[in-house]
Amino acid sequence: MADLIQPRTLRGFRDYLPALMIPREHLLEQARRVYRSYGYAPIDTPALEYLEILGGKAGEESDKLIYHFKDHGGREVALRFDLTVPFARFAAQYINQLGTPFKRYHMGPVWRGENTGHGRYREFWQCDFDTIGVTSNASDIEVALVIHDLMRALGFERFEIRINNRLVLNGLLEEMGLAKQGAPLLRALDKLPKIGAEAVMAEMAEKAGASRAQAERILALAAMQGNNREILTRLEREFGTNPRAADGIARLRELVTVVRDAGIAEERIRLDLSIARGLDYYTGTVYETFLTDKPDIGSVCSGGRYDNLASLYTKQVLPGVGASLGLDRLLAAMEELGLLPKVCTPAPVLVVQFAAEYVGAYQHMARQLRGEGIGVEVYPEAKKVGQQLKYAEARGFRVALIAGPDEFAQGMWQVKDLQRREQINVPATEVAAAIRKVLSIT
Amino acid sequence: MADLIQPRTLRGFRDYLPALMIPREHLLEQARRVYRSYGYAPIDTPALEYLEILGGKAGEESDKLIYHFKDHGGREVALRFDLTVPFARFAAQYINQLGTPFKRYHMGPVWRGENTGHGRYREFWQCDFDTIGVTSNASDIEVALVIHDLMRALGFERFEIRINNRLVLNGLLEEMGLAKQGAPLLRALDKLPKIGAEAVMAEMAEKAGASRAQAERILALAAMQGNNREILTRLEREFGTNPRAADGIARLRELVTVVRDAGIAEERIRLDLSIARGLDYYTGTVYETFLTDKPDIGSVCSGGRYDNLASLYTKQVLPGVGASLGLDRLLAAMEELGLLPKVCTPAPVLVVQFAAEYVGAYQHMARQLRGEGIGVEVYPEAKKVGQQLKYAEARGFRVALIAGPDEFAQGMWQVKDLQRREQINVPATEVAAAIRKVLSIT
Repeated sequence: MADLIQPRTLRGFRDYLPALMIPREHLLEQARRVYRSYGYAPIDTPALEYLEILGGKAGEESDKLIYHFKDHGGREVALRFDLTVPFARFAAQYINQLGTPFKRYHMGPVWRGENTGHGRYREFWQCDFDTIGVTSNASDIEVALVIHDLMRALGFERFEIRINNRLVLNGLLEEMGLAKQGAPLLRALDKLPKIGAEAVMAEMAEKAGASRAQAERILALAAMQGNNREILTRLEREFGTNPRAADGIARLRELVTVVRDAGIAEERIRLDLSIARGLDYYTGTVYETFLTDKPDIGSVCSGGRYDNLASLYTKQVLPGVGASLGLDRLLAAMEELGLLPKVCTPAPVLVVQFAAEYVGAYQHMARQLRGEGIGVEVYPEAKKVGQQLKYAEARGFRVALIAGPDEFAQGMWQVKDLQRREQINVPATEVAAAIRKVLSIT
Repeated sequence: MADLIQPRTLRGFRDYLPALMIPREHLLEQARRVYRSYGYAPIDTPALEYLEILGGKAGEESDKLIYHFKDHGGREVALRFDLTVPFARFAAQYINQLGTPFKRYHMGPVWRGENTGHGRYREFWQCDFDTIGVTSNASDIEVALVIHDLMRALGFERFEIRINNRLVLNGLLEEMGLAKQGAPLLRALDKLPKIGAEAVMAEMAEKAGASRAQAERILALAAMQGNNREILTRLEREFGTNPRAADGIARLRELVTVVRDAGIAEERIRLDLSIARGLDYYTGTVYETFLTDKPDIGSVCSGGRYDNLASLYTKQVLPGVGASLGLDRLLAAMEELGLLPKVCTPAPVLVVQFAAEYVGAYQHMARQLRGEGIGVEVYPEAKKVGQQLKYAEARGFRVALIAGPDEFAQGMWQVKDLQRREQINVPATEVAAAIRKVLSIT
């Protein structure tokens, strides 16, 4: 026999065992359900694309992270590092066929060869949703509604969606004669929670030539406190004369109003003028989402409005707005917090096997239960009952269904509640109802 | 402005637009539901692994198809070309932690740099399920049940699962003194439908030294016709004295019996002694699945029993049995056959927008409907109603929900059936019921 190959994964990559993959699939299903419920349609694009398409878009820093190589035909190809660039290429290619407005979601893995740190992986899933082809504020507002419903569907009660509109800051910059320094100023502002006010002001001076008074004015805007109505009133008073800022403030006011009218608790949305988002291409509303009990993991769902998605690939101007759920970051946080149930089976019921001759009867019963939506595993071997029950408990099965010679002679099945360690004997026709009772399905 | 980059995908790769992605997601959901209902647990592994792990497993021919390259750290890495090799590595790494029997499913993309032909892509999804750690026939039988439920869940009524057991043929080869030539003989036999009996016999002579009489005897076994019971009776009479063949025949008989006892129509399973499967590692039951109305696309769900999954990575012997659904092949066939509905939206209801001031009321109604499981898109702009209705029809929405100043004054909503071109006006509390009626949800 040849030497064994050591079974291992690459640094920065991970396997998903059932105890982690079951909740991950649950999160993906919930995200899919929410996106679909708003009419976002699914798309998919290849993991591999021409390097020419994927590179050169997000700056040198991103380019270094891209996995790329020559394929069998000598083409320079690369693994996608996000879902935004492929969507831009996709939109340029098909938008005339698809028509606008076009709403899509896209969930899939992306790859970045970056340093692996706390909770950072080189392969992780993104779950993006966007509406393109419209500048209407109704689409911006909808993004906030989707994030809200998404967080609720993922099981969170305590979270806050922080919203800003870059037009407000851009209006202020315009007033101060700094309109062209927007990008470096926003990048500096984005670092505020990490490096503090003094360092931000220093960067603003160095990278954008902002005076101390100008930098202080920007930071004062970012630091504006109060409830949403107070903030809107102050913004209108202080910046409402600039047409650009006034547009941004009006859009924020409409968002707050509609979100309330739609029936969402006001405290779920918080206007926060410090939310800048590091990416240059956002031009209007921007969103970040924080878990109240775990703010340190950063935003778990972020996005914004952009003026033009696909300018590298088409002359057609495609404005849009959307956000991205950081699914694996959220999952890693839930894992750390011990929020994941210790269940390694997607089926709640295990049928114990007494003897191979009963497998037909077991599978007959199991298929009836599956037909009613109850997942059932039939143990594949006629091992000792005690061993099979140990297996059931270790995997997190809720119910054991037992029938041996005695039960078959009487036409009965034993339904065993593995948590309460109680059992009852019922005829075949009542097995489903008895299991539903244990599982508390009404 | 810089020159535009031509938006395009690599040869052999494809985008999934909503009209194709919606049914693909539906197929994936159905597969997931069926696998879970039998207690197979989900896992995932990285797309990228050490070349050492992925290469050298499936022979030189496969190795040439593997996308591989040096990563940023100088490691030789590769994209997985199937889900079996990663599962073998995974099993070797975690089986002591997971315990046996271990049942898993794994659905994800794989990559092969092979020639692109009719319906062949360089990136496609596989949906595998396996039970490892047991030799019990109950697991083999379950694979047939899963394939059956899977095909039904995917919407097929007319299909046939063809089953064989390699032990029967191996018993015959043993009798003829050809036991050691099993692999080349099976590879030749696997080509029977493509190249015909004469060419198969020639290959058997050339590659395995089989005489014409021996080759004829093998082909006679493969050609055995009749219903399942007739075939089992003939097999027992002709080959039952060889212990290996007798074991295989007994396992096939038990399978046929249990499948019937479990309540599955007998014609769905057909014993077919010509089913060999090209892959060397199968040692017992083998499965192929054909669509009655489209047999030329080949088997859409195939698999078998193997003696040892992970021998390259561990000394622990891990027997198992499973199969793989060729999801994208199935989808491509459905596309060609015109079996896919022309729907480009996952939501059945479009709310027409009269004016931005109503967006709060629209989203309020929409959220109520979403809460009842009805997908609702709110049109993002206050365009002409006719234009919005055209959009609704082009995307395949079923219902338009309309309310303007008159309706809001009366507290009414117009529910418009877009297929029948009928509408009714109902109060807000009756909108959900009216929509359910159009959608025929009871």
